[in-house]
Amino acid sequence: MKNYLAISDIDDINSWIEEAIKIKARPLSDKKLGKDKILGMMFFNSSFRTRLSTQRAALNLGMNPIVMNIADDTWGIEFRNEVVMNSDKPEHVKEAASVVSKYFDIIAVRSFSNSANSTENEPDLVLKSFLKYATVPVINMESTTGHPLQGLADAITIAENSKKNKKIKVALSWVPHVKPLPCAVANSFVEVMQKMDVELVITNPKEYNLSPKITKNTTIYHNQEEAFKDIDFVYAKSWGFAQENVKSSNTYADWMITKNKIGKAKFMHCLPVRRNLVVEDLVLDSDSSIVIEQANNRTYATQLVLKKILENV
Amino acid sequence: MKNYLAISDIDDINSWIEEAIKIKARPLSDKKLGKDKILGMMFFNSSFRTRLSTQRAALNLGMNPIVMNIADDTWGIEFRNEVVMNSDKPEHVKEAASVVSKYFDIIAVRSFSNSANSTENEPDLVLKSFLKYATVPVINMESTTGHPLQGLADAITIAENSKKNKKIKVALSWVPHVKPLPCAVANSFVEVMQKMDVELVITNPKEYNLSPKITKNTTIYHNQEEAFKDIDFVYAKSWGFAQENVKSSNTYADWMITKNKIGKAKFMHCLPVRRNLVVEDLVLDSDSSIVIEQANNRTYATQLVLKKILENV
Amino acid sequence: MKNYLAISDIDDINSWIEEAIKIKARPLSDKKLGKDKILGMMFFNSSFRTRLSTQRAALNLGMNPIVMNIADDTWGIEFRNEVVMNSDKPEHVKEAASVVSKYFDIIAVRSFSNSANSTENEPDLVLKSFLKYATVPVINMESTTGHPLQGLADAITIAENSKKNKKIKVALSWVPHVKPLPCAVANSFVEVMQKMDVELVITNPKEYNLSPKITKNTTIYHNQEEAFKDIDFVYAKSWGFAQENVKSSNTYADWMITKNKIGKAKFMHCLPVRRNLVVEDLVLDSDSSIVIEQANNRTYATQLVLKKILENV
Repeated sequence: MKNYLAISDIDDINSWIEEAIKIKARPLSDKKLGKDKILGMMFFNSSFRTRLSTQRAALNLGMNPIVMNIADDTWGIEFRNEVVMNSDKPEHVKEAASVVSKYFDIIAVRSFSNSANSTENEPDLVLKSFLKYATVPVINMESTTGHPLQGLADAITIAENSKKNKKIKVALSWVPHVKPLPCAVANSFVEVMQKMDVELVITNPKEYNLSPKITKNTTIYHNQEEAFKDIDFVYAKSWGFAQENVKSSNTYADWMITKNKIGKAKFMHCLPVRRNLVVEDLVLDSDSSIVIEQANNRTYATQLVLKKILENV
Repeated sequence: MKNYLAISDIDDINSWIEEAIKIKARPLSDKKLGKDKILGMMFFNSSFRTRLSTQRAALNLGMNPIVMNIADDTWGIEFRNEVVMNSDKPEHVKEAASVVSKYFDIIAVRSFSNSANSTENEPDLVLKSFLKYATVPVINMESTTGHPLQGLADAITIAENSKKNKKIKVALSWVPHVKPLPCAVANSFVEVMQKMDVELVITNPKEYNLSPKITKNTTIYHNQEEAFKDIDFVYAKSWGFAQENVKSSNTYADWMITKNKIGKAKFMHCLPVRRNLVVEDLVLDSDSSIVIEQANNRTYATQLVLKKILENV
Repeated sequence: MKNYLAISDIDDINSWIEEAIKIKARPLSDKKLGKDKILGMMFFNSSFRTRLSTQRAALNLGMNPIVMNIADDTWGIEFRNEVVMNSDKPEHVKEAASVVSKYFDIIAVRSFSNSANSTENEPDLVLKSFLKYATVPVINMESTTGHPLQGLADAITIAENSKKNKKIKVALSWVPHVKPLPCAVANSFVEVMQKMDVELVITNPKEYNLSPKITKNTTIYHNQEEAFKDIDFVYAKSWGFAQENVKSSNTYADWMITKNKIGKAKFMHCLPVRRNLVVEDLVLDSDSSIVIEQANNRTYATQLVLKKILENV
């Protein structure tokens, strides 16, 4: 594998999950693979789990991670072509990406639009620009349209927590939030579930449909209760901007996940999660919640991706 | 040892000092102990010596330190329970502490209140919350009520600079400052000196008494000159908030430490120190000052704590 | 070598270049030299290439780099002597430099004045203060008056790209910019070229002459076209403040480097570079541009400097 940009870069989800679970059992067994290699992590947005789990994954492989917060550590980067660069952005991505390719063996980039509007012309301009001008492999640590390291961790977590002898049913449920959020996590979750042998349903208020390019044939319920019938896993996530003129999230406060709604189903969320707005304490503090193990699997998902890239360098 | 949260976690100060001095003589002799282990350092406040000496200590033990400035690198963390999380703090410490326990082998936390009011209900809420929800050992890199890594380094420094054949006299002196400061360093210094075989006295303006829970039977002089009679070590530190309605620090400008006041006694301070406000240049620039060696000992104090925890993991 | 502060610390530029090119061919061959050593990198200003290439260089030598952004991670540092420290700068460089000498084996400092005025009394006060009070080697990662790691990388790049059988001609050309910039890069470039066996010329508007202490006998053309006759390398850099009452940079928009002006000459710039203001796309996107290789050589220049210091520690 050269780059890891989207769920579509996973060629065989079942073999990937199997390999990730092996890595989890013996995380230091490939410690020589990354020796003397540097992973450069470039953050255009804040990060908690991605920042830490990616460093852990790199260290488990013997790599040296170098972290850079672009805004704090350096300066603005220009992504438009053929402009006179007289703005507050003194460096062009053509140089930035070429140069970091000299210092890093693998580049990981987090950049998503805070006004994450799916109608934007080039929503993943930053990631795509690094991919275009970099001469080393590039990993997506979350872009406007996808968060494939999270999606892979989600798939591993569902596989680990599933009984082998039955087809499981998974619901992705939109949840209320204080502000509109990007669709990246939801998109990647839908895409990775579509690759797995599960029954996936999506439930959201009718104004909040994800892009049909993502959802394809997946059933969408605008009635949450209906979606949760016989459910095994409930994956909660807020998102916005899927359509113009969406109503305020507060309109749908009753979309919060409760113990009463999900019964014995496992509860998943990418974190950070707003308690008693997105999901009630009763769910998060119960055995139904697998959010911490899901976060733990971020390390092994990323370690698998790094391993596949390192084996190919 | 599981955690290091306060001076009370030191079971035998003399054996700890002895071991720290051995580590200082051969700092790399336990380099295998921390192999493949990650120390996560989480800063809710700025840090200079703690940030650097803790990284040095971890590297000396073969550990990989990962540093995170919570405010800059991530986002606000909620510490109250059973609230609807619709504020600017999108992540609860329950999740934050549980998750970092998956990525780090030991967690170190610095969080003290800038309005460090000892009447606050839960002055060490952040540290205590991490302790409660973390599943790996926790180290206090300074909380509102204590700075036990500094206190241990102080004890080592006094032991190194004491003659064996006499009982030494140590004075903790309040000093003027431009603003009220937390009592953490003063508290931990008093507590660690009370464990040692020294004569400890405290001197401060009468409005600035430390909490009686800390000072216990230690003699407090409101006359600095009296406290400094026959003194061997003067430890200067400003603090505030010990009582309500304290007068402005400027009222007590003459509490500054001078060469004339302390004579041949050794001068100590945790740093940073404001020259010619807290202590005159003449003292800091003389052989009486042992503040640099005191800062150096931060490395070995922390290395001892990490070693004791690693041996127990 | 004890410290690396200025181009004048290079004793023999030709042997340095030769050694740097050897390091570039086998960058990991001295991996044991820096074992258990810490390079402390202290940034008072933003940094991109210096930040990353210096970490890469340290890691190539087996060192552990520790990075600190002074403003974000710590607090203000006082550099004036004999003052009452009641301002917003709670730590004096006397303590700061002495203390970091206990935690780091080598200290690297970036600090340049943003109001980079060459008439300032002590333009390199920060660097010189660290040098004065540190007890370990100090490296200049760019000060107000010089950027000798960049200058060394520039010399290596010119050597690599020169034909052996002819004397090459190099022009340093002032270029327009949106704001006045320090003279550090230009100064160090002039100084290192004066050490090499090349014909160096400088070209700039007449108000923008560099300090005669730097330029010495080097020919200065106020006509760019004249300077570029038979040119082999064009090094573009904006600077200001060389003289009082300089005109706005916009007055000289036609000093931008174009393909038409430089023909087949190699184009160099320290980066970041403002496209279509400093140099047109046509130059940067052509084979004439060697700016990426120049940035790559930052790693090997720094690695050579670190190696020479480590061999002497």
